[in-house]
Amino acid sequence: MTESVPDLLAQRYRTAQLPALAAADATIATLLGHRSVRRFLHHGEPGSEVTEAHVATMVAAAQSASTSSDVQAWSVIEVRDPERRALLGDLSDNAVHVRQAPLTLVWVADLARQHALLAREPDAAGSPAPPVNGRLLEAGLVSFLDTALAAQNAAVAAESMGLGICYLGGVRNEPEQVAELLGLPAHTFALFGMCVGVPDPDRLPRRRPRLPQSVVRHAETYGAPPSEPVRLSDLEGMAAYDDTVAAFDLERGADRGPGGRWAARMRRRLADVAALHGRERLRAVMRERGFPLE
Amino acid sequence: MTESVPDLLAQRYRTAQLPALAAADATIATLLGHRSVRRFLHHGEPGSEVTEAHVATMVAAAQSASTSSDVQAWSVIEVRDPERRALLGDLSDNAVHVRQAPLTLVWVADLARQHALLAREPDAAGSPAPPVNGRLLEAGLVSFLDTALAAQNAAVAAESMGLGICYLGGVRNEPEQVAELLGLPAHTFALFGMCVGVPDPDRLPRRRPRLPQSVVRHAETYGAPPSEPVRLSDLEGMAAYDDTVAAFDLERGADRGPGGRWAARMRRRLADVAALHGRERLRAVMRERGFPLE
Repeated sequence: MTESVPDLLAQRYRTAQLPALAAADATIATLLGHRSVRRFLHHGEPGSEVTEAHVATMVAAAQSASTSSDVQAWSVIEVRDPERRALLGDLSDNAVHVRQAPLTLVWVADLARQHALLAREPDAAGSPAPPVNGRLLEAGLVSFLDTALAAQNAAVAAESMGLGICYLGGVRNEPEQVAELLGLPAHTFALFGMCVGVPDPDRLPRRRPRLPQSVVRHAETYGAPPSEPVRLSDLEGMAAYDDTVAAFDLERGADRGPGGRWAARMRRRLADVAALHGRERLRAVMRERGFPLE
Repeated sequence: MTESVPDLLAQRYRTAQLPALAAADATIATLLGHRSVRRFLHHGEPGSEVTEAHVATMVAAAQSASTSSDVQAWSVIEVRDPERRALLGDLSDNAVHVRQAPLTLVWVADLARQHALLAREPDAAGSPAPPVNGRLLEAGLVSFLDTALAAQNAAVAAESMGLGICYLGGVRNEPEQVAELLGLPAHTFALFGMCVGVPDPDRLPRRRPRLPQSVVRHAETYGAPPSEPVRLSDLEGMAAYDDTVAAFDLERGADRGPGGRWAARMRRRLADVAALHGRERLRAVMRERGFPLE
């Protein structure tokens, strides 16, 4: 299943001019080899299980990621029960692969532990200090970032062990119902899910191409001219990438027409509320769940 | 420099009962072996350089991380100029290691490209559709998460190549001045920095311990009883961890007294505005920079 780093790089950029890398070992191959897996071996097939040791390894990797001042503001919920996974899949608009993968991890931004520590400690006046900072955007942002760094380490660990993963932003579509399903207390929020399973080797997806490195890299400053939102070269790079994605979609038999091209999808995400699948309510729900983000 | 996975696991948890892992190869060792490096070889010493090929490898890894619906809502700014690094260090309250590391990467939440795509495309009525979704928390959150997943892959790639990194949340202390220093356009925000360099082998820090796995893992549901903010076992786990960190600090000669214990620091983060170093203004600044997070 291992492919060479030059092959992986060619799949990732699909351009003639590829970046020259400094290393090509197994770790770099794992990182470059990522693909979102949505077809898994079925429960009961030999070698289809995600074991306790797999999860312990993923969590050890997750906990080894950086965390802002040691706060470790995240939790992970392991959902294996088929009925709960089916419900989670329905709520996330991702029913098929959430049902099929034996494990869904739900990554939770978690300030509840900090709140619990504060609540139990009386200050000089005999009552706990009010958690004023917990109302601020900074507290929420730290928990979002801590959660994402941890989850990504878990993803890399999983893929290095031959497992496949797929992030599920869809758990934000119906956040109140997801919170109820998972018994989430105040000051916790299900940020995203992650299907985990053994990839079906006969149904591995192609690796999706990415923007040219020149579009995401900036030397010393951002470099956009005063009258423009981005660099002019970024517009050219995005146009070339739009063609790359169209060719990729054609190749994999998923021609989506002009409205399905990358640039058109990006515009719709920014301008069409229907593209949000209910996530336009995110701020109100987060406030209710103890993330005022003020 | 490579240590065994069992050794790394013992350093990470510092308890007698360690989780049983499913793998112990070089990738898992890289993930578990993370430490935030703040002492680097000086510029000019043999082997002290972070090369273009190192950065290209980190960025290829970053771009290979998952991204919500292909939006790739991040950019990275490579700051090598010593004067600009010194300014960035001063603004981030991290002067020493930002000055010393040859490279600081600034990871930028970036919706500017999406806005540029929309601005250039007239709709049926002849003018671009208004970017209504871009005002919402979901748009900002996607860019924050995309940025963090990408940065963490870059961190793992760097460490696998023998480089050391340290995240810098401090770039959020003075976000307007950081934006000016880096020439950031509207709809971009410097989320965090990352010092990159070759670790000084004589000044490698000890690896920081983390909470027991039982505190961050939850089976099927969160499991807190109705009247409590967290599980009772979490309170016990946190108390044990508070002792672990105190012993760790003593061992490394950094006894910070009762007020410096982990639980006390966590409480202060939540209750003392002075702990925020200016980040209490984050929401207002983000709004000005084109992230209303509504």
